[in-house]
Amino acid sequence: VTLEEARALDAADPLSHCRDRFRLPSGKIYLDGNSLGALPADAPARVARTIEQEWGNHLIESWNRHGWIDAPVTIAAKLAPIVGARPDELLIADSTSVNLFKLLAAAIRARPGRRVVLSEEGNFPTDLYIVQGLQRLIPDLELRTASADCIDEALSEDVAVLMLTHVDYRSARRHDMAARTAAAHRAGALALWDLSHSAGVVELELAGCGADLAVGCGYKYLNGGPGAPSFLFVASALQEQLENVLSGWMGHAAPFEFDAAYRPRDGIGRFLTGTPSIVALAALEAGLDSFDGVTVAAVEAKTRALTDFFIACVEARCPGLALASPRDSRNRGGHVIFAHPGGYAIVQALIARGIVGDFRAPDQMRFGFAALYNRFEDAWLAAEAVFDLIETGAWAQPQFHRRSRVT
Amino acid sequence: VTLEEARALDAADPLSHCRDRFRLPSGKIYLDGNSLGALPADAPARVARTIEQEWGNHLIESWNRHGWIDAPVTIAAKLAPIVGARPDELLIADSTSVNLFKLLAAAIRARPGRRVVLSEEGNFPTDLYIVQGLQRLIPDLELRTASADCIDEALSEDVAVLMLTHVDYRSARRHDMAARTAAAHRAGALALWDLSHSAGVVELELAGCGADLAVGCGYKYLNGGPGAPSFLFVASALQEQLENVLSGWMGHAAPFEFDAAYRPRDGIGRFLTGTPSIVALAALEAGLDSFDGVTVAAVEAKTRALTDFFIACVEARCPGLALASPRDSRNRGGHVIFAHPGGYAIVQALIARGIVGDFRAPDQMRFGFAALYNRFEDAWLAAEAVFDLIETGAWAQPQFHRRSRVT
Repeated sequence: VTLEEARALDAADPLSHCRDRFRLPSGKIYLDGNSLGALPADAPARVARTIEQEWGNHLIESWNRHGWIDAPVTIAAKLAPIVGARPDELLIADSTSVNLFKLLAAAIRARPGRRVVLSEEGNFPTDLYIVQGLQRLIPDLELRTASADCIDEALSEDVAVLMLTHVDYRSARRHDMAARTAAAHRAGALALWDLSHSAGVVELELAGCGADLAVGCGYKYLNGGPGAPSFLFVASALQEQLENVLSGWMGHAAPFEFDAAYRPRDGIGRFLTGTPSIVALAALEAGLDSFDGVTVAAVEAKTRALTDFFIACVEARCPGLALASPRDSRNRGGHVIFAHPGGYAIVQALIARGIVGDFRAPDQMRFGFAALYNRFEDAWLAAEAVFDLIETGAWAQPQFHRRSRVT
Repeated sequence: VTLEEARALDAADPLSHCRDRFRLPSGKIYLDGNSLGALPADAPARVARTIEQEWGNHLIESWNRHGWIDAPVTIAAKLAPIVGARPDELLIADSTSVNLFKLLAAAIRARPGRRVVLSEEGNFPTDLYIVQGLQRLIPDLELRTASADCIDEALSEDVAVLMLTHVDYRSARRHDMAARTAAAHRAGALALWDLSHSAGVVELELAGCGADLAVGCGYKYLNGGPGAPSFLFVASALQEQLENVLSGWMGHAAPFEFDAAYRPRDGIGRFLTGTPSIVALAALEAGLDSFDGVTVAAVEAKTRALTDFFIACVEARCPGLALASPRDSRNRGGHVIFAHPGGYAIVQALIARGIVGDFRAPDQMRFGFAALYNRFEDAWLAAEAVFDLIETGAWAQPQFHRRSRVT
C-alpha cells in the first residue's frame, strides 16, 4: 500500500470537506479522537458568543432570551439523526456516570422483583462502578457480568436491566444492538446502551432496535470538548413510567414555582437534575454542528474504510503485530487495537513524532479514527511510523517508558 | 439620603477597585448577581486559552500538561479562604443538586439506625427534592422540616443529617452556622450546609464551626458563569468514613488502571463522579480569581453596608414598602426582599429601566448586592427607581404583567 493510494482514497472521500470544520494542530496526526475529539473550528466563537454576548451583556435575562432554559433539549435534538432517535427522546445533562446512575436506578425500580444488572466482563469501569455505588443504596442488587458471547444465555428472569457498551473501549468490538435488545426484552429486562464509543462513529438506530435507554459521552467523537456533558436517551414509551431519583429542580414540572414537593416534568426533561453548564453546552453544540449535512451512513462507511485501510497498512508492514480488534468492520467501532509487549513505549515514541494514539494496559496500542477529520493519509503515515519504530527499535529508548498520570 | 452620599461611600469603599474585574453592560444596574453573577473580565480569555491552546493544540495531552486531571481540586483550593476550609476539604464537581445527593446519601449511610433528614420549611426546593429522590431508594427515609426558629428542638435522636441553607434564597435570613452545627452534633447528627447564597457574600468558617458537609453554587456570587459547576466540602476527619454512592471512575483511586472493582481515592477526590467539564471549570476559575487579594471580612463588611444602605434608601422614599428580610445585617445575606402586591410588575418595570433585580412569588422583589461589583450608587439609583415607579404608578402598565418562563 502506498502513500499515493492513501491520497487517492482521500481525494475520493465524500467527507473530506469536513476536515475543514476542525482546527487541527499542524504537525500532528491525531488518532485519539476516541478519547478527546478535536476542536471544531466554530467552537471558540460559539463559546465566546455565549460568554461575552449572552452571559456578559444579557446576564440573567439570557435564560429566556437566548433559550438557555431549553438548551439541554434543543441541543440534544441535534443528536437525533446521529443516534437514530426522536428529538424528544434525548437530553444533554451531567456526566455519563451520573446519567448511568439515573437510568439504572429508574430501570431497576421499573422492574420490581428483579434485582440483577447484567453487564459484560471488561465493560468500561465507570459503568460497573456506578452499579457498585447503587448496591450501597439497594442492598440486594446484584451486578452480574458475562462474556460478550454469553450475554443472551445469562439473561435469566431475575435480570432487571441489561447494560452493555455498544462498542468496547478496548477491543472496539461492536455488539449487535438489535439482537441483544431483543434478547433482553424476551427475558423481560430493559436494555441500556452506553454509546460512548459509538455515537458519531457507526450507524445507530436506537428507535429501530427498540432500545429502552442509552447514555453516551459528549467529548469523544461528538467533539464537545474535555469533559463535555453527556447525553441520555429514554424511549418515548418509557418516559412517563420512569422516575429520576436524582430529582433536582431542573427536572421539576415548574421549577420557578418553587414548590416544596417534587413533581416531574412531562417527557425527557424529567431526567434533568441541577442547572446545566451553558458554557459547556455551547461547546458541545459546536461539536454536534460539525455533523451538519453528514449522514451516519456516510460516517460509518468512512469509519470502516479508514480502519480497514489502517489494519491493511500495519499488517503489510508489521506482520508480527497482533490485531486485537475484530477483523470484520461490521463488528468494529472507530478504533483499532494492535497488541505489542512494548505497546506503552511505542505509543509514547509515536507521540514524540507527532502521531497521537493511546495505550491501554497491558499491551494495547489504540488508534482512533474520526470520520470527520482523519484521512487515509493519516492512517498510512501512522502505520509507517509504527513500522519504523519497531524496525529500528527506537521505541526502546528509556524516555518512552516514563509513565504519565493519565495514559 | 442623597446621590452624593452614595458616591462618597463608593469613593471610600476599599473594594471599589474590584468592579474593574468585571465586564458590566453599560446602562444597566445589575442587582441579580445572587442568581447569575456578572462576567469576570478575565473569563473570556481564560476560557479561550483552555479551548484554543489546551484543547485545540495539545488535545488529549492536556490532561497531564495543563493539569486538567487535577483541576477539580486545584481550582477548588481557591475557595478555601472564601468558605473557611482547608484546600483539601474542597472539590468542584457536578451540580449543587448532584452534590447534595452524594453528601446526603453518604451522611445517611454514616448514621445507621437514623432515618431522618431534618431541614427547614421553605428551603430552596432542589434541596428538598433531592431528599425526595433519595426516599425512592431508601424507603424508610423521612424528610422532616421545621421552621427556622424551631430547628434545635426538632433535632431528635432519629435525625441523621441536619441540612440547612445558610442564607435563605427568599428572605436572605442567615442561620447561625456555629450554633446550628453544635446543636446537630449534640443530637448525634451531621450538619450539611447549602452555601449557595453565602459563598462570596458573608464570612464563612466551615472549619471553625465544625461543619461536616457543605455544597454550594458556582454561578451566583462566585461568578462562575451560567450553570457553573458546584463545590462541595467534606471535613477532613470524615472523608475516609464517607462513601460516594455516585461512584464514577474519576473518584477511583487509579482510574487509568481500569479495574473492574471500585476503590475510592483517598481524600476529597473520592467525591468526584464522571469526567468534569474543563471548559466550565476554566470559567469558574476566572470567577474565583475575581476574589484575589480580597478578604471575606471585607466582603462581608461591604455586603452589610450596601444592603443596609439600600434598605435605608428604600424606606426613606417608600415608607409603604415592607422589608421582608432581617433588619439586622448580621442575620442577613447579600440580598434584600421588599414585598409589594405588584412586585412582579414593578420588577419588570425596573428591568425596562435597566435595573435588574428579580421576583419570587407571591410578592417578593429581590435585590442582590455583590460586594465585588455593586456600588452604593447602584443601591441609591435602584431605590429611586422603585420610588418613582410606585409614586407614578408606571409599573401598572400591562406590558409589565406578562410572565416569562424563567422569572
